[in-house]
Amino acid sequence: MFRKLLTLDEAQDAINRLELKALGAEETPLLSAHNRVLAEDVTSKLDIPPFDRSTVDGYAVKAKDTFGAEENQSVLLRVCGVVSIGELPRISVSAGQAAEIVTGAPIPEGSDAVVMVEDTERTGDELHVFSAVTKGENVMKRGSDIKKGETVLKAGQVLSSREIGVLAALGAAYAKVHEVPQVAVLSTGGEVTEPGKELPPGKIYDINAYSLSAAVLESGGNPICMGVAPDDPIEMREALQRALECADVVVTSGGVSVGPKDITPQTVDSLGKPGLIFSGIAVKPGKPTTMAVIGRKPVFALPGHPTSALLVFQLLVRPVIERLSGRTLTEVAKVKGFAGMRMFSAKGRRTFVMVKLRRDKTIGLVAEAVESGASGAITTLAKADGYVEIPENQQFVDKGEEVEVALFRNYA
Amino acid sequence: MFRKLLTLDEAQDAINRLELKALGAEETPLLSAHNRVLAEDVTSKLDIPPFDRSTVDGYAVKAKDTFGAEENQSVLLRVCGVVSIGELPRISVSAGQAAEIVTGAPIPEGSDAVVMVEDTERTGDELHVFSAVTKGENVMKRGSDIKKGETVLKAGQVLSSREIGVLAALGAAYAKVHEVPQVAVLSTGGEVTEPGKELPPGKIYDINAYSLSAAVLESGGNPICMGVAPDDPIEMREALQRALECADVVVTSGGVSVGPKDITPQTVDSLGKPGLIFSGIAVKPGKPTTMAVIGRKPVFALPGHPTSALLVFQLLVRPVIERLSGRTLTEVAKVKGFAGMRMFSAKGRRTFVMVKLRRDKTIGLVAEAVESGASGAITTLAKADGYVEIPENQQFVDKGEEVEVALFRNYA
Repeated sequence: MFRKLLTLDEAQDAINRLELKALGAEETPLLSAHNRVLAEDVTSKLDIPPFDRSTVDGYAVKAKDTFGAEENQSVLLRVCGVVSIGELPRISVSAGQAAEIVTGAPIPEGSDAVVMVEDTERTGDELHVFSAVTKGENVMKRGSDIKKGETVLKAGQVLSSREIGVLAALGAAYAKVHEVPQVAVLSTGGEVTEPGKELPPGKIYDINAYSLSAAVLESGGNPICMGVAPDDPIEMREALQRALECADVVVTSGGVSVGPKDITPQTVDSLGKPGLIFSGIAVKPGKPTTMAVIGRKPVFALPGHPTSALLVFQLLVRPVIERLSGRTLTEVAKVKGFAGMRMFSAKGRRTFVMVKLRRDKTIGLVAEAVESGASGAITTLAKADGYVEIPENQQFVDKGEEVEVALFRNYA
Repeated sequence: MFRKLLTLDEAQDAINRLELKALGAEETPLLSAHNRVLAEDVTSKLDIPPFDRSTVDGYAVKAKDTFGAEENQSVLLRVCGVVSIGELPRISVSAGQAAEIVTGAPIPEGSDAVVMVEDTERTGDELHVFSAVTKGENVMKRGSDIKKGETVLKAGQVLSSREIGVLAALGAAYAKVHEVPQVAVLSTGGEVTEPGKELPPGKIYDINAYSLSAAVLESGGNPICMGVAPDDPIEMREALQRALECADVVVTSGGVSVGPKDITPQTVDSLGKPGLIFSGIAVKPGKPTTMAVIGRKPVFALPGHPTSALLVFQLLVRPVIERLSGRTLTEVAKVKGFAGMRMFSAKGRRTFVMVKLRRDKTIGLVAEAVESGASGAITTLAKADGYVEIPENQQFVDKGEEVEVALFRNYA
């Protein structure tokens, strides 16, 4: 059991040292792979386009046959046929000839450029060309987009509309992506009732199971919302064991309240080896945060206060889910602003002050601490645009001092 | 039928003038409401917390009984009982008394503060208090987080983990959110084959149905991926009619290629009233973009080139989906950089140059135009970090000139 609180850096280092490999790969239909993480490098099995294509509607020609053509002086060519779209041309173009062609159709043999239809006048088979083209003009060459054998996407890339487009271009109906981490979310506390039920006197509604499950979604994981665990160490232990069986990561919040001592660390430690990694960190809010590894599965016991729980989730749990997903760790977007008031830190603890931003005409961006029923209030978080971080060895941030505000928007 | 091309601004104005109301509301389970848009203001039916709560483990006392207590000089109180968590206290605290209490439990009658357990020493019923507390200390007052009748969330807010937490606090098991716009996505073109199938000679794989469907997801819509429409104006018209029946918005890409003339505008216009809004806009890439309204449903016919299609989607279609979703329009994130090369515009057309960013030690952020098989290439987009916009009346951006780069990352 640890006595001394770890600093946030030490806690993060301890988590970084854990061997947490990205989960295995699975084949998923292309569109379902959206926002998932590619589990392999992708190499093209074909040239794209697979043939020289016309990029305009017009006539495939030998470029040199058009030399000298100008607005006032046309060159006369003879139309030798039509190239159908979606099949290889059955005609070829000889000197002095032109083949009718539409955008996207393959360039017929013998031709090396396409004259735009706007630059021609046709009567029967006679084609007057009023503009010269150079070799390759209006032609998209075979393999000019992607070459056969070229690696076009890398393992670890998140698949947005653009990468989905590249995979479609290669003819892939499926993508090999990392499995989505399953994250069990449990609330504890004898005072906690599930939303939607009648609220008995002395109880409050469960916030954390929902806010943390939503945060799991925002981190690229799949939440298994297990509701409120019984307020009894033995039953709590059983609930945690069930959670470990079905999930890759377990996140609880709140302590098991049997008397004036939080027995969460012991309960979590008793689940298996290696057990507790740390219990208590020198941050505010979030001090009671406890973490264990059971088998290879991370178990986080977050504080019960909604703001603390969600903040510590972002600091410690989100990166774990991202690593298991094969994702690059999200960098929190930051903006510079000025403190609108003096903000105090908790002595010796990394302090996170929730702030709301407002734009002041003369000063610029001003960060005001959110009036807080402190970490117990969910509205503290809901009203905040982000937070200001005060280092362990600093007493306060003074009014007017420049501060960096980490934005919540980026999390959503 | 329009002859003169609309400018991008004119096209956007025409779309802004359309009467596009957010879709109707539906009740959805709280967690499924994540990232959806709230369809009503939410007012709390209860005080939160619903009772004065202890924020620590310790003893509920009358604050004035602890005055004078210090580290070296305790005050003696008598423990009068235990407050159980999750129910209303059955005891009350008289002068000189203290009630054992855990975090989250209701403050018993007669007490007005809580002494932390760390600041006490107990022997049987005798409690030595080594630290004075002030009235209200370690107590979270009823309604201090949210007051009964208070409006805590506003219609139009997107529900992130923080807002989901607020709704849970209110006891809401469901949220009233706007319906998700259904967007039919169709590709056209006789040369286009679905990914996963054998690629016949002269054909290419369908990119747009997939990249545009993914872009619909990124915009908060639900794509109905209708694959490749037949390359025949009558069958195409029928496919569009089916799409209009099942979707709120229809997005096609590519032209119907029967000969050297794109008949998409006529086909789209023939679907119903009011019909065509514009056909052709002065942008590059994306000139052939066509838009109609049929009944009240927007129909977009985007260019066939993958990069053009996806760019025009972001410029014109995404805002429409966002409006139908009840969302605030996404502001594209922009960064300032310097042009790494001269970038030319297309005369009289708003030009979008796809660029890749690199950080140069002396210059700073440099934007390099992506080598392009132009808009026909999907890799142009996949390689780009964003785009530089050149106004209609500007010939080029010079090397070294400061440019604003609109980032793609924000779209994902």
